[in-house]
Amino acid sequence: MREVKAEILAIGDELLYGQIMDTNSLWISQQLTDIGVRVVHRATVGDNEPAILEAFKAAQQRADIVLITGGLGPTRDDLTKPLLAKYFDCDIQLVPEALEAVKSYFARRGRELTELNILQAHLPTKCTYVPNTMGTAPGMWFEENDTLWMSMPGVPHEMKKLMETFVFPQLKERFSLPVIYHKVVKTVGIGESWLADKIRDWEDALPSHIKLAYLPSIGLVRLRLTAFGEKIKELTVEVEEQIEKLLPLAGKYVYGFDETSLEDAVGQLLRSQNKTVALAESCTGGYISHLITSVAGSSAYFNGSIIPYHNQFKQQVLGVKKDTLIDHGAVSEETVIEMASAVRKTFGSDYGLASSGVAGPGGGSDEKPVGTVWIACASEDGVRTKKLQLTDDRMINIQLSGISVLNLLRLEINKITE
Amino acid sequence: MREVKAEILAIGDELLYGQIMDTNSLWISQQLTDIGVRVVHRATVGDNEPAILEAFKAAQQRADIVLITGGLGPTRDDLTKPLLAKYFDCDIQLVPEALEAVKSYFARRGRELTELNILQAHLPTKCTYVPNTMGTAPGMWFEENDTLWMSMPGVPHEMKKLMETFVFPQLKERFSLPVIYHKVVKTVGIGESWLADKIRDWEDALPSHIKLAYLPSIGLVRLRLTAFGEKIKELTVEVEEQIEKLLPLAGKYVYGFDETSLEDAVGQLLRSQNKTVALAESCTGGYISHLITSVAGSSAYFNGSIIPYHNQFKQQVLGVKKDTLIDHGAVSEETVIEMASAVRKTFGSDYGLASSGVAGPGGGSDEKPVGTVWIACASEDGVRTKKLQLTDDRMINIQLSGISVLNLLRLEINKITE
Repeated sequence: MREVKAEILAIGDELLYGQIMDTNSLWISQQLTDIGVRVVHRATVGDNEPAILEAFKAAQQRADIVLITGGLGPTRDDLTKPLLAKYFDCDIQLVPEALEAVKSYFARRGRELTELNILQAHLPTKCTYVPNTMGTAPGMWFEENDTLWMSMPGVPHEMKKLMETFVFPQLKERFSLPVIYHKVVKTVGIGESWLADKIRDWEDALPSHIKLAYLPSIGLVRLRLTAFGEKIKELTVEVEEQIEKLLPLAGKYVYGFDETSLEDAVGQLLRSQNKTVALAESCTGGYISHLITSVAGSSAYFNGSIIPYHNQFKQQVLGVKKDTLIDHGAVSEETVIEMASAVRKTFGSDYGLASSGVAGPGGGSDEKPVGTVWIACASEDGVRTKKLQLTDDRMINIQLSGISVLNLLRLEINKITE
Repeated sequence: MREVKAEILAIGDELLYGQIMDTNSLWISQQLTDIGVRVVHRATVGDNEPAILEAFKAAQQRADIVLITGGLGPTRDDLTKPLLAKYFDCDIQLVPEALEAVKSYFARRGRELTELNILQAHLPTKCTYVPNTMGTAPGMWFEENDTLWMSMPGVPHEMKKLMETFVFPQLKERFSLPVIYHKVVKTVGIGESWLADKIRDWEDALPSHIKLAYLPSIGLVRLRLTAFGEKIKELTVEVEEQIEKLLPLAGKYVYGFDETSLEDAVGQLLRSQNKTVALAESCTGGYISHLITSVAGSSAYFNGSIIPYHNQFKQQVLGVKKDTLIDHGAVSEETVIEMASAVRKTFGSDYGLASSGVAGPGGGSDEKPVGTVWIACASEDGVRTKKLQLTDDRMINIQLSGISVLNLLRLEINKITE
């Protein structure tokens, strides 16, 4: 089986100026990798005739399929369409079907069709018209010079729809793509090298057709298993068997699989046990509540939060004892215990979570430098606490504290000791 | 004055697999554009000898300077260094100064130096060693084949430091770069096309050496003015004069300039007037508090928040009247007025902000479909409210509500009517 090679070409001055982030090329890379197409090259060029023509020529020499985004707006700056016609030596003509689509697109929105929009229904005669149901610039598919070409608008949701409804099916039909099964194991509470140490024997014993990649991000490490073979069912079984062997080694750090976020996982745990949670956030300032409530349906288990950003309000609004604050300070185990217990009671919740720390850049001392954070999880069984010693970066401290608090709740619900 | 052309080359299989986002190329594009260097091409290639050598050759034909990131790790996968040596036909030798730097890097962290780390101090003989104070892979500078070349590690903060301390000064010394002055005007509360309508005459009257770009993002539109000329002082004065003319047309939408975020701007307003704020967040679930507290020093003006995610807690914790909730519902002007007033009082703050809405995807009704949000800002002068009719996307609704609430406070502090 021959490897299918792809090139991704993004067109637009705004990309080279750094005015917008090219998320399209990243997404296309991920999707193609997932179906076993090898991305061999990505390029970005401006709205410039020689540069675009040169990029077409270079891509053709490297790839079986060239995926082009951008440069399809109706203004004169946008060159992709005329240059595709020039490169493939053909005319541009009105495509009645495309005109109907543009007309109905505007009619649905009650907007006037302009001259420029009508131009968008004119396409190179050598292309196959691919309807864009999300916008006005059609997709264009070419089979020229022993290469497949797809030109798409740069608007991400329009591009994605065209890829999903047209390009992926075409690729699967035309090429004998390898059978690949992916599974991502998501861990929290352990660094990449420590995790690697724990699972080394397992990793070394993986069969050669199952590859492992470590994908670390702030506070989390993802393990990505990719299995290559003949039959998807066999690969699925094999990967699941490997994961069964992995779990005894790394199980207490594993919070979920594939697209599950930590806040999703914690939400599912709460929901499955019919439990509720409330938060008293000091140094995290609402970040954890935001994570929890970003999940659709979180009102089933999230009761509410209090963010008492000063000692005075930790006392008055939340009910932390004045003596506790005076004797131990706001950033202390004693204070977070009272915060978690108080907010649990206030919102009549099964679990109460709390954070208090020095996020920085100011507010540090010798005893409690920037990055010192206390967190707590109160339940009917008592209060779990943890001291974190984080970084000197405010945003990273907020993020790491948030992840640690959610993980503390996960461990508590699962009755796992750290 | 000849235009200086740059190419950005990112190396690494993990980029082509879509495992990591290439933020380096975006940042370098922005920075080069800002100093008047024209980025003519960006490319991404994998850890593959022919692909990398071909990319070097193509870049050399297009650019005066080639900026390379990635492929400098100590493992055998990383090919950038040996291929630079091959491409420029030279040996790789130990650079004692680089070895000292790597040794002291490890000593400072109390870690053991490995064989692989010592290899990182071996460099192509034709390169100038550029110390990397943030990591172990040095920068390498070449002046070969009428082109300048800089190879840098892919770790963003290491790359940025090398660019700032070495590459930009080199570029400014070696080339007569155009004199450019940038200023970004940041607006909120108005869409791109409406803003364009309001400022059309001003835009049409801009002198030809001052360019305007509209840069929209969720809820915000940035106006970027770029002036080209001879003397930076004159350009600064000219751009400031243009902004003076712009403000009467768009002033009430302008919340700041350049790097100022909306939460920065609102924080500066509160701080300058010695005022404080508290929030009652329902549908935004902590997002606005998180925005406010992501700003360093926000404890000077942020007192705290209550997030009563259910009617019961709007009553019990915040003190909204039961009758109000029964008669008008949680998503109503009456409820957000009581929420904003109550939280203002609870936290003894000058301003009280509130949000209540249907973020979605569930919870909508004919009367109050998904995307219906009421917001309020209470002060000693009374309560300002606004009804928003947003989208069917939960995260976008949360973000747009957050921006609208911060903007409501900005308008209230500045005594601007919408």
